Amino acid sequence: MSDDKKLTPRAEDFSAWYNEVVQRAELADHSPVRGSMVIRPWGYGIWENMQRALDDMFKETGHENAYFPLLIPMSFIEREKEHVAGFKPELAVVTHAGGKELEEPLVVRPTSETIIYSMYAKWVQSYRDLPILLNQWANVMRWELRTRLFLRTAEFLWQEGHTAHATDEEAQEETLRMLGVYRRFMEEFIAMPVVTGLKSDAEKFAGAVRTYTCEAMMQDRRALQAGTSHHLGQNFSKQFGLTFQSEEGTEEYAWNTSWGVSTRLVGGLVMTHGDDAGIVVPPRLAPVQVVIVPIFRKDEERVAVVEKAHALKAAFAERGVRVRVDDRDHLNPGAKYYEWERKGVPFRLEIGPRDLAKEQVVLVRRVTPEGEDRKVFIPESEAIERMPALLEVFQGELLERARARREAHSHRGVNSFEELKEILEGPGGFVYTGWSGDPAVEERVKAETKATLRCIPDEDFRSEVTPTRCIGGGQATMEVMWARAY
Amino acid sequence: MSDDKKLTPRAEDFSAWYNEVVQRAELADHSPVRGSMVIRPWGYGIWENMQRALDDMFKETGHENAYFPLLIPMSFIEREKEHVAGFKPELAVVTHAGGKELEEPLVVRPTSETIIYSMYAKWVQSYRDLPILLNQWANVMRWELRTRLFLRTAEFLWQEGHTAHATDEEAQEETLRMLGVYRRFMEEFIAMPVVTGLKSDAEKFAGAVRTYTCEAMMQDRRALQAGTSHHLGQNFSKQFGLTFQSEEGTEEYAWNTSWGVSTRLVGGLVMTHGDDAGIVVPPRLAPVQVVIVPIFRKDEERVAVVEKAHALKAAFAERGVRVRVDDRDHLNPGAKYYEWERKGVPFRLEIGPRDLAKEQVVLVRRVTPEGEDRKVFIPESEAIERMPALLEVFQGELLERARARREAHSHRGVNSFEELKEILEGPGGFVYTGWSGDPAVEERVKAETKATLRCIPDEDFRSEVTPTRCIGGGQATMEVMWARAY
Repeated sequence: MSDDKKLTPRAEDFSAWYNEVVQRAELADHSPVRGSMVIRPWGYGIWENMQRALDDMFKETGHENAYFPLLIPMSFIEREKEHVAGFKPELAVVTHAGGKELEEPLVVRPTSETIIYSMYAKWVQSYRDLPILLNQWANVMRWELRTRLFLRTAEFLWQEGHTAHATDEEAQEETLRMLGVYRRFMEEFIAMPVVTGLKSDAEKFAGAVRTYTCEAMMQDRRALQAGTSHHLGQNFSKQFGLTFQSEEGTEEYAWNTSWGVSTRLVGGLVMTHGDDAGIVVPPRLAPVQVVIVPIFRKDEERVAVVEKAHALKAAFAERGVRVRVDDRDHLNPGAKYYEWERKGVPFRLEIGPRDLAKEQVVLVRRVTPEGEDRKVFIPESEAIERMPALLEVFQGELLERARARREAHSHRGVNSFEELKEILEGPGGFVYTGWSGDPAVEERVKAETKATLRCIPDEDFRSEVTPTRCIGGGQATMEVMWARAY
Repeated sequence: MSDDKKLTPRAEDFSAWYNEVVQRAELADHSPVRGSMVIRPWGYGIWENMQRALDDMFKETGHENAYFPLLIPMSFIEREKEHVAGFKPELAVVTHAGGKELEEPLVVRPTSETIIYSMYAKWVQSYRDLPILLNQWANVMRWELRTRLFLRTAEFLWQEGHTAHATDEEAQEETLRMLGVYRRFMEEFIAMPVVTGLKSDAEKFAGAVRTYTCEAMMQDRRALQAGTSHHLGQNFSKQFGLTFQSEEGTEEYAWNTSWGVSTRLVGGLVMTHGDDAGIVVPPRLAPVQVVIVPIFRKDEERVAVVEKAHALKAAFAERGVRVRVDDRDHLNPGAKYYEWERKGVPFRLEIGPRDLAKEQVVLVRRVTPEGEDRKVFIPESEAIERMPALLEVFQGELLERARARREAHSHRGVNSFEELKEILEGPGGFVYTGWSGDPAVEERVKAETKATLRCIPDEDFRSEVTPTRCIGGGQATMEVMWARAY
């Protein structure tokens, strides 16, 4: 693909834009294995920064990492009834190994509740062994029919936290604590605001008592389920004999939670901030925050300008800024600009012979708020001093822009089914209505509008005026949010 | 298993000691899946520190991380003849997915050369696209018949570097560069000295032109292959069409290297430094470098002592020391000492009411060089100030101790087959002899002594007097090193 070929504009075909930008920003590529992607260094670098930030937050909240087997006996998956119903159609199964047919087929983990709680059952004797607060970074496999890079792939990378507690209350606290960690991470690092809330029974995790979710709005106004936190009750502990002796000497089943986010978040980042020139990476997650492009015509200019570029790089690095000098000889500056814009590096710094003499640089922002200059000449020393602060401002602006867009496309006080349908078929977005709790209403909405009940929003996201009428008619008992979703 | 039950002494049964210590130090546990282990937080914490250090070294040498699919089409594995011969007997095969039988079986990657070079073939057009210097952190699967925690498991975690170069020379340089990175990491972090060198043709990686290895000596004097770096020549690029247009305009095949180390290194750490009380973790890899145990009888003592313990913890943390306060109420100090000794924490700090009054602490080293005190009373402020230096001294002593042990059990100038056999059946160790290069000699040694040709040592490790006689009789053309191995 030619490097300067323009991307399909988002307004023309958002889905085509997404597929193109993911590949042309070198985030990921299709592999010869159906539904499995290759995550390229630029995409993996963003994922590594996500991992680092999340891992720190998990450790601050008392969790440790561990690693459990990739392959799970089929009989384990089958033990929890709802769980197997949810996952069985998507399983990849190892039937042969070491040149022989296996006595029992092994499934490539679609998620690890069963194998993990079987181990906890072995480790836990008394209340003193609780809580167990573990997380695992791993690959998982769900054989999906229709796949899209990052958003829905047969194999994906994720983390899955699995905890065991002595009481229902503690497990509920943990479920909400991790939902809060996810919300904070998505807002503060991905600059992607989310609505948090409870899933309806129809939408909850197969095997959970309650599922909480983070729902983000993409630029095409569809919802992306960005992370979930489940209260599993005693469903798995009963199937796997995860019991403990309580302080009072009685034998009790433990209470479990699980929570996960995946490489899907990279897709969320792309669809939240990208524009027709490429992706935009929030500074806190950018593998490169500032790219320096030296500009020159003659050889003697080259030496001085490249030397200065590397001196600037050292000065930035000293201030904790992730910086790269693009001194490739076979590309002209224009080609480099396009490439780094496509890859979403927050700041570009151009430096030529005249700038050198004036001890100035040209600073170009990847995204410019209305009314501000995209390109500014500033003294070298000022660029160095101010860069950490400029990156934080950029980070904040991305979040604000995304939040404003979400608010502009959130529809509250919707009372009639017709109005709901009109919005979803027209502008789209998040639609808040009343709901009686009747699953038949969910089914009707889904069948007629392709939207699903995304969540019963947490307090922070509820409308000022509580709806009293269910969107399906009759009395509402709660407010819910609907959207078409990825 | 009771917490104070003693481990089988190493001298009595090294293999039993290993199996016990790995489980009782909570490094890993057996899982319900044959040959697959669970890596518990203490073992995973050590692996995380290994990963962090190696990853930094990979990035310093210009590598980036990426991620390739877990499942590989069977036809890919079959394309390189030697490769498939080496790996086919150990493959785990997915035959069914999404409720259907697959048209082509997929293998769970035993290593990723085939899938990775097929992608490089897609990305590389010209010499300007080279070199490609990627690494992946991943799980791999080799269906082994006899497994042992960390040393040989069906599934293990590792990193695999895969590079593509325009010339043979560049690829050779890369192969040796990464061998050097491994050697440095093993010495400076695991405190595990290694002999580096070239594998014989019989022992090289299936598909490589040349395999270089790092061989470490365990306490039972057997060798552990701790890491390998392969020059793959054009073997894979020819099978996968990985070509590029050279600067002169001709179409050429690229030259590849691959290199890897795995969670096996945790087993190497255990067998290098452990003693009859437990494992010993080198400070640079220890998840906890100092454990503080508060000692008290009465409740009012408890408050003051625990408060002081946490104040000390903060002071250590400020100096970059990883520290934990063990203030569990249901264990007495003795039980805590045993547990942390078993887990190999380098320093224990005891603090009781009398120490509090004197502003002193009791410092206990996990390993004490002969003639030094195991337990010392030192002023609190001195413990804080000196700890970073004490940890470095401890790290250095572990390396020296391991190196001295290896040297004491390295046998040089061995000329006769009988002498070789006597050493291997008696004290064991690394035996250096001359070799003609004849594979029949290797086969005879293996059949009669169970030892293998570990490597043709690099210059640093060769004997001062070059052997002239082959151990199988006749003229030697090189010096080689033999040992029984894991």
